[in-house]
Order: sequence, then structure tokens, then C-alpha cells
Amino acid sequence: MRVPYLEVLQVLEKIFRSEGLYPEKAALCAHLFAQASMDGVPSHGLDRVPVFLEMIRKKRVFPLAEAQRLETFGFFERWNGNLGPGPLNAYQCMERAILLAKEFGIGLVALQNTNHWMRAGNFGWQAVESGCIGICFTNTKPNMPAWGGKEPKLGNNPLVIAIPRSKGHVVLDMAMSQFSYGKMNTYLRDGKEMPFEAGFDQKGNLTKSPSEIIAHELALSIGLWKGAGLSLVLDMLATVISGGQATHQVGKSGDEYGLSQVFLCLDPGKLGMKDWIDQKLDEIILDFHASQTFDNQKIRYPGENTLIKREENRKEGVPVDETVWNKIQSYLP
Amino acid sequence: MRVPYLEVLQVLEKIFRSEGLYPEKAALCAHLFAQASMDGVPSHGLDRVPVFLEMIRKKRVFPLAEAQRLETFGFFERWNGNLGPGPLNAYQCMERAILLAKEFGIGLVALQNTNHWMRAGNFGWQAVESGCIGICFTNTKPNMPAWGGKEPKLGNNPLVIAIPRSKGHVVLDMAMSQFSYGKMNTYLRDGKEMPFEAGFDQKGNLTKSPSEIIAHELALSIGLWKGAGLSLVLDMLATVISGGQATHQVGKSGDEYGLSQVFLCLDPGKLGMKDWIDQKLDEIILDFHASQTFDNQKIRYPGENTLIKREENRKEGVPVDETVWNKIQSYLP
Repeated sequence: MRVPYLEVLQVLEKIFRSEGLYPEKAALCAHLFAQASMDGVPSHGLDRVPVFLEMIRKKRVFPLAEAQRLETFGFFERWNGNLGPGPLNAYQCMERAILLAKEFGIGLVALQNTNHWMRAGNFGWQAVESGCIGICFTNTKPNMPAWGGKEPKLGNNPLVIAIPRSKGHVVLDMAMSQFSYGKMNTYLRDGKEMPFEAGFDQKGNLTKSPSEIIAHELALSIGLWKGAGLSLVLDMLATVISGGQATHQVGKSGDEYGLSQVFLCLDPGKLGMKDWIDQKLDEIILDFHASQTFDNQKIRYPGENTLIKREENRKEGVPVDETVWNKIQSYLP
Repeated sequence: MRVPYLEVLQVLEKIFRSEGLYPEKAALCAHLFAQASMDGVPSHGLDRVPVFLEMIRKKRVFPLAEAQRLETFGFFERWNGNLGPGPLNAYQCMERAILLAKEFGIGLVALQNTNHWMRAGNFGWQAVESGCIGICFTNTKPNMPAWGGKEPKLGNNPLVIAIPRSKGHVVLDMAMSQFSYGKMNTYLRDGKEMPFEAGFDQKGNLTKSPSEIIAHELALSIGLWKGAGLSLVLDMLATVISGGQATHQVGKSGDEYGLSQVFLCLDPGKLGMKDWIDQKLDEIILDFHASQTFDNQKIRYPGENTLIKREENRKEGVPVDETVWNKIQSYLP
């Protein structure tokens, strides 16, 4: 089904206020969840609202908590998220990184003790819409094995790289797992195999069977051993730069909370890139789009379709699974 | 065969001097090639010396050219490599990034118009041996298809993330292709299939057959569409930050030269991480090493074995393919 954008915002805002968020924070939080679904990422948008609300009720997410600056080093700041709502903490820290970049050319903000930021790409869009190159990443609880491992030890640690471009921003938003558990659960429910190898069976062989993978949390990292290594070092960076918890500590309670995140912005104007950034990106994309393909479909760069989808969904209503929407509405005060 | 470390250095230095490099540059260049083989990466060490020398003779690499600073913005500098030897330009720019990080907490150096840096990991080791977190990446000529593409459009754009640690540095060095063409050629020569899917056949299906992949340069990106996206944005970042050429431009002449690179350093001491960096890394690695595995082998973090291998090869001699060593010696003046 589709729900008008304004109705989605109103319903979410009302719920978040009733769960204790300050009015302006409830509005921003509603926007961030709605944005994800608008942009075609319902798995980290409306689908996640019930989970987020349960985390508030379980006192893993504290709706009134505000992120707090711990230390400042000019272009670099270290923040404590105080276990507040993850999307709000992340938004605030990306906003700081943007402001620092506008002042110093670069802005780096590390955030400890925060919660799941939901859709990672939101914060990349935030950076490019302010004219900045934005890079951010987070750790998660352990949900993938190391290469050769038979138990989850690594997080899927999403990474965002966003580059502003007048004719359409480039926003890469990728987790270190080949497929999310959400996606694997969808295939499982439909009784289908995954389209590509997606994890390991109990003998350590690659498999497309979602049930085996999900049962033991043995999702495949991108590029086999390579993504496993990248996931590990992203966790290390997020942990040591923020001073917060590492993936292995996040996992201990069973719930996923108390994460570490990093937000980096560069202001192209401040760093002498203004003269060429658009032209160079346009040339790269022109060549990329000219690629011959096996199915004669045009190749798309990361983020290419997002604005089209966003506009379409703003006009026609936000797509949402009916069960999810009913569930969300059951939280209305 | 094994050649004593000092002999390797002497032979390389003599050759590089006879090809026109200044004496101290010839020594550093010899060290960088030898280091790669010492550390167990001959594909980007001694194996590449003949290719490097041919690039000098073809006037793609100018042995006397020196990198030159174009612009400076405090912690950020933009350099022109003037098509000098890639390993020397990269070393010099990482050295600048380290110095800037020691002064400002962060150091960012972008390098345009440079050449292949050979082993990427060298520059990660350089950063951590100076006590810095180091991140660097380069673009390359097009050697992988976009996801769905039937011609090479993306570079394999190696990425290095290095984190200093008293009990053993962490150095991730990974290209965006699942396997290098060097590795695929080895399997082809041995008449073997690749151990995992490594590229595409002419119908666009994933294949383990090195011959089909090599013939059309259809190497698989790590994580299928994900690594393809990451490769594209790394090329974009390297290009717009350095102001240099993008992958599609590098490829035009047929040879690989005139690359763009980025070097980023953080000084943990300057950014308030000194109190915890070792402890947090040790805890992460302790948990990582404790992972149960399918084959009961210990899991290794990126860079874990490098120092052991380096020490062993320093004592017992640098391993080198006999044909390669003879070829190298044929360049002796």
C-alpha cells in the first residue's frame, strides 16, 4: 500500500512524541524514518519503526537522551551519544562534521555510545545536500563470521561514501555483508534460494540457502576474505577514534546498542576542488553510462535512482507493507 | 630461490641508478620493491621490477621527475607527481601526510599525475611505523566491468587502511577485484580453475575459468555490485580531491600511467586516542582470535603475518622466482 507522505510524518511524529521524544526531535526522527522508505529503503525505514519503539520500551534507546560533546580538537570532535535515538545522534554528528568542514575544510566527528542509525545513506545525503563530500561508518553487533570462522565475530558495519554533484549526487551505502538478514528472511519466507552465494553452511561451504545461513548467523562478507578484513578494520577505526565500544562488546548483551560511529566531511570549496568537481564527476559518469552491458540495460551509479524514487513516492505516497503500517499505527497514543 | 636481502638491495639500486634515478632515490626505490617481496607480496615487489623498468624506457615513468606541491591548505596539500616513479611519489606524499598529522592531528595529501605505486601496503606500513593511522587509495586503468557491464570500466583501485598497535600493526591492503590478473594468470598457467568465482564469461555468467575472464578483462569486483560501487566512488574521490585523471582517462593510452591517489593520516596522540588505542585493539584481536573455525586453524587479522615473514626473509633471503631474478639481473649495467 501507499500512504501519503504527510500522513506518514504525522503518524510517526505523534508516536515518537508519545514515546517521550521532544517535539522537534520527534519531527526529525519521523523525517529520517520516512526518508528511508521514500528513497526505496523500507528495510531501514518504516519496517524498522516497531523495532525502534521496542528498543525504547526495553530501555536500550533513551528517547530524551541528547548527544554531548566530550572533546574538541578544532576540526575534530568526539561525542557521547548517551544511548539516545541513533538516527538523531547520527544526524547531529553529521551536521557537526558539515559545519566543521565549512570552517576548516575538513570535519571529523566520532560518536561513541550511540544506537542503530537505521538507514546509513540518510547521512550521506545530508552531507551532499550541504555541498560536502561525506564519509561515515558504524559498527554493529557481530553478525558475520571471520573468513574461515564458524561463529559471528564481525559486524556488517555499513559504510557510506557520498560525493556532491550538481546533476545528481553520488551516494554509496553498503554493508559489509553480501545480503542483509532482512533480505535473506524475505527469500526464506518465499521459499527461494538466494540469487548468489550468501553465507556458509555448517560444513563451512558457501551456500545460497537462507535457512542454513540465518540459523547460525553465518552471512557472507563481500568479497569473501576481503570484506571480512574491511569489516574488522572499520570496527577498529570506529572504536579507537570514538573511544567507544567495539563489535565484540556490542554483542554481549544480546541486543544491539552502544555503537561507535565516525563522520568525515570535506568541503570541496574550501579545498580548491570547486573548479573541477562537477566536470570530473560528469565525465566519469558519462563514460560509466556508456558501458556495454549483457542485458542492454543502462548501468546506474550509486544513488542515481534515489531522487527519482523520492519524487515519485512524495507524489504517489510512501510504499509500505500493510502489516507494517498496521503495526506502526497500533503504537498511536 | 632466495637472494640475500642486501644483495637484492644492491642489485636494484645499481639498476635504478643506471636507469637515471638519483642515488638516494634509487636506494629508496630499491627498498620499496624489496620490502614487498620480503613481506610476501612478490607480485608487487620483485616480479614488477622489469615492468617498472620498461615503463621508464617507454617514457611513461620519468626517473628524474620529482613530485611538486601545487597547493597547501594547512593540513591538506595537493601534489603533482610529474609522472615520476610511482613508489617514490607515494612514499613522499605519505611522508607529508604523516608530518601534517603530527602537526595538525590529521594530514591529507592528494597526488595527481603519478604512476603505479606497486605494493599499496608499503604506504600503510609507512604510516603505522610512524605511529599514525593511515588510509590511502589509488585509481588504476579500467580492468573490471561495472555490475552488469561487458567491458572493463572500473579500476581495481586498491585501498589501504592501517592502524598502529604496539603488539603488531594492523594493515589491510585490498584491491576491489576478487583476484588480481596476476593470480588468475598463475592459475591459467597451472591449468587450474580459480578457487572461487573470479569474473564473467561472455554470457555474463560468473565463472571460475581464468582464461575467459582474462581474455576480456572481466574480473569480478568484491561483493558483486557492492565492490563495483566502491571502486567507482574511490575513483571519484581520488580524481576530485587530487584534481587528476580518472580511471577512464588513465586507460585511454593503453598503458597505465598518470594516476590519482589520496593519503590520509591521523595522529592518535594528537586526537586523544593514546589512552585506549592499544587496549581497544588488543581486546578486538583477542576476541577475533578466539573465533571457532571450520578447520581449527587460527584466524589472522590483516597484516598479522607480515612481520614474521619479513623477519624470516631478512634472515633466510628474499624469495624470488629464478626467471624473475635472472630477468632483473639482465638490466644490470
